[in-house]
Amino acid sequence: MNYRAVEPAGEYVARLETGADWRAEIESLADAVEADAAWFTALGAVQDAELWFYDQEECEYYPIEFDEPLEVASCTGNVSRLDEERFAHTHAVLSGPDGEAVAGHLNEATVWAGEVHMRVFEEPLERAYDETTELDLWL
Amino acid sequence: MNYRAVEPAGEYVARLETGADWRAEIESLADAVEADAAWFTALGAVQDAELWFYDQEECEYYPIEFDEPLEVASCTGNVSRLDEERFAHTHAVLSGPDGEAVAGHLNEATVWAGEVHMRVFEEPLERAYDETTELDLWL
Amino acid sequence: MNYRAVEPAGEYVARLETGADWRAEIESLADAVEADAAWFTALGAVQDAELWFYDQEECEYYPIEFDEPLEVASCTGNVSRLDEERFAHTHAVLSGPDGEAVAGHLNEATVWAGEVHMRVFEEPLERAYDETTELDLWL
Repeated sequence: MNYRAVEPAGEYVARLETGADWRAEIESLADAVEADAAWFTALGAVQDAELWFYDQEECEYYPIEFDEPLEVASCTGNVSRLDEERFAHTHAVLSGPDGEAVAGHLNEATVWAGEVHMRVFEEPLERAYDETTELDLWL
Repeated sequence: MNYRAVEPAGEYVARLETGADWRAEIESLADAVEADAAWFTALGAVQDAELWFYDQEECEYYPIEFDEPLEVASCTGNVSRLDEERFAHTHAVLSGPDGEAVAGHLNEATVWAGEVHMRVFEEPLERAYDETTELDLWL
Repeated sequence: MNYRAVEPAGEYVARLETGADWRAEIESLADAVEADAAWFTALGAVQDAELWFYDQEECEYYPIEFDEPLEVASCTGNVSRLDEERFAHTHAVLSGPDGEAVAGHLNEATVWAGEVHMRVFEEPLERAYDETTELDLWL
Protein backbone atom coordinates (compact mmCIF):
# COMPACT_ATOMS: atom_id res chain seq x y z
CA MET A 1 0.00 0.00 0.00
CA ASN A 2 1.35 3.28 -1.20
CA TYR A 3 0.29 6.47 0.56
CA ARG A 4 1.17 10.09 0.94
CA ALA A 5 0.21 12.87 3.33
CA VAL A 6 -1.61 15.76 1.70
CA GLU A 7 -2.01 19.36 2.81
CA PRO A 8 -5.28 21.16 2.10
CA ALA A 9 -5.04 23.95 -0.48
CA GLY A 10 -8.72 24.86 -0.50
CA GLU A 11 -12.22 23.50 -0.10
CA TYR A 12 -15.17 24.15 -2.38
CA VAL A 13 -18.84 23.43 -2.92
CA ALA A 14 -20.26 23.67 -6.42
CA ARG A 15 -23.57 23.35 -8.16
CA LEU A 16 -23.29 21.67 -11.56
CA GLU A 17 -25.12 23.28 -14.46
CA THR A 18 -28.25 21.66 -15.86
CA GLY A 19 -27.55 20.35 -19.38
CA ALA A 20 -23.76 20.25 -19.02
CA ASP A 21 -21.67 17.08 -18.73
CA TRP A 22 -21.26 15.84 -15.13
CA ARG A 23 -17.58 14.95 -15.31
CA ALA A 24 -16.63 17.94 -17.49
CA GLU A 25 -18.27 20.20 -14.89
CA ILE A 26 -16.12 18.70 -12.16
CA GLU A 27 -13.04 19.18 -14.34
CA SER A 28 -14.13 22.81 -14.92
CA LEU A 29 -14.24 23.30 -11.18
CA ALA A 30 -10.74 21.81 -10.92
CA ASP A 31 -9.55 24.15 -13.68
CA ALA A 32 -11.21 27.18 -12.07
CA VAL A 33 -9.47 26.59 -8.74
CA GLU A 34 -6.26 25.22 -10.31
CA ALA A 35 -6.56 21.89 -8.56
CA ASP A 36 -3.94 19.36 -9.72
CA ALA A 37 -4.97 17.03 -6.90
CA ALA A 38 -8.32 16.88 -5.18
CA TRP A 39 -10.89 14.54 -3.68
CA PHE A 40 -14.63 14.94 -4.18
CA THR A 41 -18.01 13.48 -3.37
CA ALA A 42 -21.25 14.53 -5.04
CA LEU A 43 -24.96 13.84 -5.42
CA GLY A 44 -27.78 14.90 -7.73
CA ALA A 45 -29.54 13.65 -10.82
CA VAL A 46 -28.72 13.16 -14.50
CA GLN A 47 -30.72 13.00 -17.73
CA ASP A 48 -28.69 10.08 -19.13
CA ALA A 49 -25.38 8.39 -18.37
CA GLU A 50 -22.55 6.33 -19.78
CA LEU A 51 -20.91 4.08 -17.21
CA TRP A 52 -17.79 2.04 -17.92
CA PHE A 53 -16.96 -1.43 -16.63
CA TYR A 54 -13.32 -2.55 -16.65
CA ASP A 55 -12.77 -6.05 -18.00
CA GLN A 56 -9.85 -7.28 -15.87
CA GLU A 57 -9.08 -10.12 -18.34
CA GLU A 58 -9.05 -8.00 -21.47
CA CYS A 59 -7.76 -4.95 -19.60
CA GLU A 60 -10.27 -2.78 -21.38
CA TYR A 61 -13.23 -0.59 -20.46
CA TYR A 62 -16.67 -1.39 -21.85
CA PRO A 63 -19.40 1.24 -21.97
CA ILE A 64 -22.90 0.75 -20.55
CA GLU A 65 -25.39 3.36 -21.73
CA PHE A 66 -28.50 4.63 -20.02
CA ASP A 67 -30.78 6.96 -21.95
CA GLU A 68 -33.16 7.89 -19.15
CA PRO A 69 -33.25 10.13 -16.08
CA LEU A 70 -31.44 8.72 -13.05
CA GLU A 71 -30.69 9.93 -9.54
CA VAL A 72 -27.02 10.21 -8.61
CA ALA A 73 -27.24 8.41 -5.28
CA SER A 74 -23.49 8.46 -4.75
CA CYS A 75 -20.49 9.90 -6.57
CA THR A 76 -16.90 9.65 -5.37
CA GLY A 77 -13.71 10.56 -7.18
CA ASN A 78 -10.49 12.46 -7.43
CA VAL A 79 -8.68 14.91 -9.65
CA SER A 80 -5.16 14.27 -10.90
CA ARG A 81 -2.93 15.08 -13.88
CA LEU A 82 -3.17 12.70 -16.82
CA ASP A 83 -1.37 13.48 -20.07
CA GLU A 84 -1.01 17.16 -19.14
CA GLU A 85 -4.74 17.52 -18.45
CA ARG A 86 -6.78 17.58 -15.27
CA PHE A 87 -8.72 14.32 -15.08
CA ALA A 88 -11.64 13.66 -12.75
CA HIS A 89 -11.67 9.93 -12.00
CA THR A 90 -15.34 9.48 -11.16
CA HIS A 91 -17.35 6.52 -9.86
CA ALA A 92 -21.08 6.75 -9.31
CA VAL A 93 -24.19 4.90 -8.22
CA LEU A 94 -27.29 5.85 -10.21
CA SER A 95 -30.91 4.88 -9.60
CA GLY A 96 -34.20 4.68 -11.46
CA PRO A 97 -37.91 5.17 -10.69
CA ASP A 98 -38.24 1.98 -8.61
CA GLY A 99 -34.99 2.67 -6.78
CA GLU A 100 -33.12 0.08 -8.86
CA ALA A 101 -29.41 0.86 -8.78
CA VAL A 102 -26.70 0.73 -11.43
CA ALA A 103 -23.12 1.74 -10.84
CA GLY A 104 -19.60 1.96 -12.19
CA HIS A 105 -16.96 4.27 -13.59
CA LEU A 106 -18.82 7.37 -14.81
CA ASN A 107 -17.59 8.52 -18.19
CA GLU A 108 -20.30 10.99 -19.08
CA ALA A 109 -23.77 12.04 -18.03
CA THR A 110 -25.98 15.05 -18.68
CA VAL A 111 -26.54 17.00 -15.47
CA TRP A 112 -30.08 17.58 -14.24
CA ALA A 113 -28.88 18.91 -10.90
CA GLY A 114 -25.61 18.27 -9.12
CA GLU A 115 -23.92 19.26 -5.85
CA VAL A 116 -20.22 18.66 -5.31
CA HIS A 117 -17.84 18.98 -2.38
CA MET A 118 -14.15 19.14 -3.33
CA ARG A 119 -11.03 19.26 -1.19
CA VAL A 120 -7.95 20.44 -3.04
CA PHE A 121 -4.45 19.35 -2.03
CA GLU A 122 -1.10 21.15 -2.29
CA GLU A 123 0.72 18.11 -3.66
CA PRO A 124 -0.06 17.24 -7.28
CA LEU A 125 -1.21 13.70 -8.12
CA GLU A 126 0.17 12.44 -11.40
CA ARG A 127 -1.13 9.31 -13.11
CA ALA A 128 1.15 6.94 -14.98
CA TYR A 129 0.66 3.66 -16.81
CA ASP A 130 0.66 0.56 -14.58
CA GLU A 131 1.72 -2.66 -16.32
CA THR A 132 -0.20 -5.07 -14.06
CA THR A 133 -3.63 -3.53 -14.45
CA GLU A 134 -3.01 -1.56 -17.68
CA LEU A 135 -4.62 1.39 -15.89
CA ASP A 136 -3.26 4.88 -15.31
CA LEU A 137 -2.66 4.90 -11.57
CA TRP A 138 -1.13 7.47 -9.27
CA LEU A 139 1.70 7.14 -6.77
CA MET B 1 -20.78 25.64 -13.02
CA ASN B 2 -21.23 27.74 -9.95
CA TYR B 3 -18.83 27.30 -7.06
CA ARG B 4 -17.70 28.92 -3.85
CA ALA B 5 -14.78 28.47 -1.50
CA VAL B 6 -15.75 27.38 1.99
CA GLU B 7 -13.91 27.70 5.29
CA PRO B 8 -14.21 24.92 7.86
CA ALA B 9 -16.14 25.85 11.00
CA GLY B 10 -15.95 22.45 12.66
CA GLU B 11 -15.83 18.72 12.04
CA TYR B 12 -17.91 16.07 13.77
CA VAL B 13 -18.58 12.37 13.98
CA ALA B 14 -21.92 11.16 15.25
CA ARG B 15 -23.70 7.94 16.00
CA LEU B 16 -27.36 8.01 15.06
CA GLU B 17 -29.86 6.68 17.59
CA THR B 18 -31.54 3.33 17.02
CA GLY B 19 -35.26 3.88 16.34
CA ALA B 20 -34.96 7.56 15.36
CA ASP B 21 -35.35 8.92 11.82
CA TRP B 22 -32.10 8.89 9.81
CA ARG B 23 -32.48 12.32 8.20
CA ALA B 24 -33.98 13.96 11.30
CA GLU B 25 -30.96 12.72 13.27
CA ILE B 26 -28.61 14.40 10.80
CA GLU B 27 -30.67 17.61 11.06
CA SER B 28 -30.47 17.33 14.88
CA LEU B 29 -26.70 17.17 14.59
CA ALA B 30 -26.78 20.27 12.36
CA ASP B 31 -28.98 22.04 14.92
CA ALA B 32 -26.75 20.98 17.82
CA VAL B 33 -23.63 22.42 16.19
CA GLU B 34 -25.48 25.33 14.52
CA ALA B 35 -24.47 24.26 11.03
CA ASP B 36 -26.14 26.33 8.31
CA ALA B 37 -23.89 24.72 5.73
CA ALA B 38 -22.21 21.34 5.93
CA TRP B 39 -21.24 18.28 3.94
CA PHE B 40 -21.61 14.74 5.23
CA THR B 41 -21.12 11.09 4.39
CA ALA B 42 -22.52 8.21 6.44
CA LEU B 43 -23.01 4.46 6.67
CA GLY B 44 -25.04 2.03 8.76
CA ALA B 45 -28.32 0.16 8.60
CA VAL B 46 -32.02 1.02 8.72
CA GLN B 47 -35.19 -0.83 9.65
CA ASP B 48 -37.20 0.60 6.74
CA ALA B 49 -36.82 3.43 4.24
CA GLU B 50 -38.64 5.82 1.95
CA LEU B 51 -36.61 6.85 -1.08
CA TRP B 52 -37.76 9.49 -3.54
CA PHE B 53 -37.22 9.51 -7.30
CA TYR B 54 -37.51 12.83 -9.15
CA ASP B 55 -39.57 12.67 -12.34
CA GLN B 56 -37.77 15.17 -14.59
CA GLU B 57 -40.78 15.44 -16.94
CA GLU B 58 -43.41 16.03 -14.27
CA CYS B 59 -40.93 17.86 -12.02
CA GLU B 60 -42.20 15.95 -9.05
CA TYR B 61 -40.83 13.48 -6.51
CA TYR B 62 -42.34 10.01 -6.26
CA PRO B 63 -41.88 7.90 -3.11
CA ILE B 64 -40.58 4.32 -3.12
CA GLU B 65 -41.18 2.50 0.14
CA PHE B 66 -39.21 -0.35 1.68
CA ASP B 67 -40.60 -2.00 4.78
CA GLU B 68 -37.66 -4.24 5.61
CA PRO B 69 -34.17 -3.98 7.13
CA LEU B 70 -31.52 -2.64 4.77
CA GLU B 71 -27.84 -1.79 5.02
CA VAL B 72 -26.89 1.82 4.30
CA ALA B 73 -24.02 1.08 1.95
CA SER B 74 -23.50 4.73 1.08
CA CYS B 75 -25.00 8.04 2.18
CA THR B 76 -23.90 11.45 0.92
CA GLY B 77 -25.48 14.82 1.46
CA ASN B 78 -25.34 18.38 2.65
CA VAL B 79 -27.00 20.76 5.05
CA SER B 80 -28.37 24.11 3.94
CA ARG B 81 -31.11 26.58 4.85
CA LEU B 82 -34.49 25.96 3.24
CA ASP B 83 -37.52 28.03 4.28
CA GLU B 84 -35.83 29.13 7.52
CA GLU B 85 -35.07 25.51 8.54
CA ARG B 86 -31.93 23.41 8.36
CA PHE B 87 -32.43 20.83 5.63
CA ALA B 88 -30.28 17.73 5.13
CA HIS B 89 -30.32 16.89 1.43
CA THR B 90 -29.59 13.18 1.62
CA HIS B 91 -28.93 10.54 -1.04
CA ALA B 92 -28.34 6.91 -0.13
CA VAL B 93 -27.65 3.44 -1.45
CA LEU B 94 -29.38 0.70 0.54
CA SER B 95 -28.97 -3.07 0.26
CA GLY B 96 -30.81 -6.26 1.18
CA PRO B 97 -29.92 -9.80 2.27
CA ASP B 98 -28.57 -10.87 -1.14
CA GLY B 99 -26.65 -7.64 -1.57
CA GLU B 100 -29.25 -6.29 -3.99
CA ALA B 101 -29.02 -2.49 -4.07
CA VAL B 102 -31.66 0.24 -4.22
CA ALA B 103 -30.88 3.92 -4.17
CA GLY B 104 -32.15 7.47 -4.44
CA HIS B 105 -33.06 10.59 -2.50
CA LEU B 106 -33.58 9.49 1.11
CA ASN B 107 -36.66 11.07 2.65
CA GLU B 108 -36.99 8.98 5.77
CA ALA B 109 -35.73 5.77 7.32
CA THR B 110 -35.71 4.28 10.81
CA VAL B 111 -32.16 4.01 12.12
CA TRP B 112 -30.83 0.63 13.17
CA ALA B 113 -27.28 1.93 13.48
CA GLY B 114 -25.68 4.93 11.80
CA GLU B 115 -22.30 6.64 11.71
CA VAL B 116 -21.91 10.11 10.21
CA HIS B 117 -18.99 12.38 9.40
CA MET B 118 -19.90 16.05 8.97
CA ARG B 119 -17.79 19.05 7.95
CA VAL B 120 -19.38 22.37 8.80
CA PHE B 121 -18.64 25.52 6.79
CA GLU B 122 -18.53 29.17 7.85
CA GLU B 123 -20.52 30.37 4.84
CA PRO B 124 -24.24 29.57 4.93
CA LEU B 125 -25.79 27.75 1.97
CA GLU B 126 -29.26 28.97 1.14
CA ARG B 127 -31.59 27.11 -1.21
CA ALA B 128 -33.96 28.90 -3.58
CA TYR B 129 -36.41 27.82 -6.23
CA ASP B 130 -34.90 27.04 -9.64
CA GLU B 131 -37.29 27.46 -12.58
CA THR B 132 -35.58 24.97 -14.92
CA THR B 133 -35.62 21.98 -12.63
CA GLU B 134 -38.37 23.14 -10.22
CA LEU B 135 -35.99 22.12 -7.43
CA ASP B 136 -34.67 24.18 -4.52
CA LEU B 137 -31.01 24.61 -5.41
CA TRP B 138 -28.23 26.56 -3.76
CA LEU B 139 -25.88 29.19 -5.22
CA MET C 1 -27.96 11.36 18.61
CA ASN C 2 -24.52 11.22 20.07
CA TYR C 3 -21.78 13.36 18.54
CA ARG C 4 -18.32 14.69 19.18
CA ALA C 5 -16.13 17.34 17.63
CA VAL C 6 -12.95 16.02 16.06
CA GLU C 7 -9.66 17.75 15.28
CA PRO C 8 -7.74 16.75 12.17
CA ALA C 9 -4.47 14.94 12.83
CA GLY C 10 -3.54 14.33 9.20
CA GLU C 11 -4.96 13.69 5.75
CA TYR C 12 -3.81 11.03 3.31
CA VAL C 13 -4.38 9.58 -0.12
CA ALA C 14 -3.40 6.00 -0.81
CA ARG C 15 -3.32 3.56 -3.65
CA LEU C 16 -4.21 0.03 -2.62
CA GLU C 17 -2.02 -2.79 -3.89
CA THR C 18 -3.26 -5.12 -6.59
CA GLY C 19 -3.81 -8.61 -5.12
CA ALA C 20 -3.99 -7.48 -1.47
CA ASP C 21 -7.16 -7.44 0.64
CA TRP C 22 -9.15 -4.19 0.33
CA ARG C 23 -9.99 -3.77 4.02
CA ALA C 24 -6.60 -5.00 5.27
CA GLU C 25 -4.96 -2.40 3.03
CA ILE C 26 -7.03 0.35 4.64
CA GLU C 27 -6.08 -0.98 8.08
CA SER C 28 -2.42 -1.01 6.98
CA LEU C 29 -2.75 2.65 6.08
CA ALA C 30 -4.27 3.32 9.52
CA ASP C 31 -1.38 1.43 11.15
CA ALA C 32 1.21 3.25 9.06
CA VAL C 33 -0.08 6.68 10.10
CA GLU C 34 -1.09 5.57 13.61
CA ALA C 35 -4.73 6.46 13.09
CA ASP C 36 -6.96 5.38 15.99
CA ALA C 37 -9.81 7.36 14.52
CA ALA C 38 -10.34 8.26 10.88
CA TRP C 39 -12.94 8.65 8.17
CA PHE C 40 -12.43 7.48 4.60
CA THR C 41 -14.02 7.22 1.18
CA ALA C 42 -12.61 5.17 -1.67
CA LEU C 43 -13.18 3.88 -5.20
CA GLY C 44 -11.64 1.31 -7.51
CA ALA C 45 -12.19 -2.28 -8.56
CA VAL C 46 -11.88 -5.72 -6.97
CA GLN C 47 -11.33 -9.26 -8.24
CA ASP C 48 -13.87 -10.80 -5.86
CA ALA C 49 -15.71 -9.73 -2.71
CA GLU C 50 -17.44 -10.90 0.43
CA LEU C 51 -20.19 -8.59 1.60
CA TRP C 52 -22.03 -9.03 4.88
CA PHE C 53 -25.71 -8.37 5.57
CA TYR C 54 -26.81 -7.86 9.17
CA ASP C 55 -29.96 -9.77 10.13
CA GLN C 56 -31.62 -7.39 12.60
CA GLU C 57 -33.86 -10.18 13.98
CA GLU C 58 -31.11 -12.72 14.56
CA CYS C 59 -28.53 -10.00 15.32
CA GLU C 60 -26.03 -11.77 13.14
CA TYR C 61 -24.09 -11.06 9.97
CA TYR C 62 -24.55 -13.28 6.92
CA PRO C 63 -21.94 -13.41 4.16
CA ILE C 64 -22.70 -12.89 0.47
CA GLU C 65 -19.90 -14.01 -1.82
CA PHE C 66 -19.00 -12.75 -5.28
CA ASP C 67 -16.31 -14.58 -7.19
CA GLU C 68 -15.99 -12.21 -10.12
CA PRO C 69 -14.45 -8.82 -10.93
CA LEU C 70 -16.51 -5.85 -9.74
CA GLU C 71 -16.09 -2.08 -9.79
CA VAL C 72 -16.04 -0.36 -6.40
CA ALA C 73 -18.51 2.39 -7.24
CA SER C 74 -18.59 3.69 -3.68
CA CYS C 75 -16.80 2.90 -0.43
CA THR C 76 -17.33 4.74 2.85
CA GLY C 77 -16.07 3.89 6.30
CA ASN C 78 -14.17 4.73 9.42
CA VAL C 79 -11.30 3.51 11.54
CA SER C 80 -11.67 2.93 15.27
CA ARG C 81 -10.24 0.72 18.03
CA LEU C 82 -11.94 -2.64 18.51
CA ASP C 83 -10.48 -5.19 20.92
CA GLU C 84 -7.08 -3.45 20.93
CA GLU C 85 -6.86 -3.51 17.12
CA ARG C 86 -7.48 -0.90 14.45
CA PHE C 87 -10.70 -1.81 12.66
CA ALA C 88 -11.85 -0.34 9.34
CA HIS C 89 -15.64 -0.42 9.32
CA THR C 90 -16.25 -0.49 5.58
CA HIS C 91 -19.41 -0.30 3.47
CA ALA C 92 -19.29 -0.51 -0.31
CA VAL C 93 -21.31 -0.52 -3.49
CA LEU C 94 -19.94 -2.87 -6.15
CA SER C 95 -21.01 -3.27 -9.78
CA GLY C 96 -20.79 -5.77 -12.60
CA PRO C 97 -20.46 -5.71 -16.40
CA ASP C 98 -24.02 -4.49 -17.02
CA GLY C 99 -23.79 -1.90 -14.27
CA GLU C 100 -25.85 -4.05 -11.90
CA ALA C 101 -25.13 -3.01 -8.31
CA VAL C 102 -24.68 -5.00 -5.12
CA ALA C 103 -23.84 -3.46 -1.77
CA GLY C 104 -23.36 -3.95 1.93
CA HIS C 105 -20.80 -4.26 4.70
CA LEU C 106 -17.50 -5.15 3.02
CA ASN C 107 -15.65 -7.89 4.87
CA GLU C 108 -13.04 -8.78 2.30
CA ALA C 109 -12.22 -8.28 -1.36
CA THR C 110 -9.13 -8.73 -3.50
CA VAL C 111 -7.92 -5.37 -4.79
CA TRP C 112 -7.60 -4.83 -8.52
CA ALA C 113 -7.03 -1.10 -8.10
CA GLY C 114 -8.06 1.16 -5.25
CA GLU C 115 -7.80 4.83 -4.33
CA VAL C 116 -8.53 6.01 -0.79
CA HIS C 117 -8.85 9.37 0.92
CA MET C 118 -8.50 9.28 4.71
CA ARG C 119 -8.88 12.02 7.32
CA VAL C 120 -7.33 11.13 10.65
CA PHE C 121 -8.63 12.62 13.93
CA GLU C 122 -6.82 13.45 17.18
CA GLU C 123 -9.51 11.87 19.34
CA PRO C 124 -9.57 8.07 19.37
CA LEU C 125 -12.85 6.28 18.59
CA GLU C 126 -13.38 3.18 20.67
CA ARG C 127 -16.06 0.59 19.88
CA ALA C 128 -17.99 -1.23 22.59
CA TYR C 129 -20.79 -3.74 22.61
CA ASP C 130 -24.29 -2.28 22.29
CA GLU C 131 -27.07 -4.39 23.80
CA THR C 132 -29.89 -3.16 21.57
CA THR C 133 -28.29 -3.92 18.23
CA GLU C 134 -25.68 -6.46 19.43
CA LEU C 135 -23.19 -4.47 17.36
CA ASP C 136 -19.90 -2.88 18.42
CA LEU C 137 -20.70 0.82 18.23
CA TRP C 138 -18.69 3.88 19.15
CA LEU C 139 -19.58 6.80 21.44
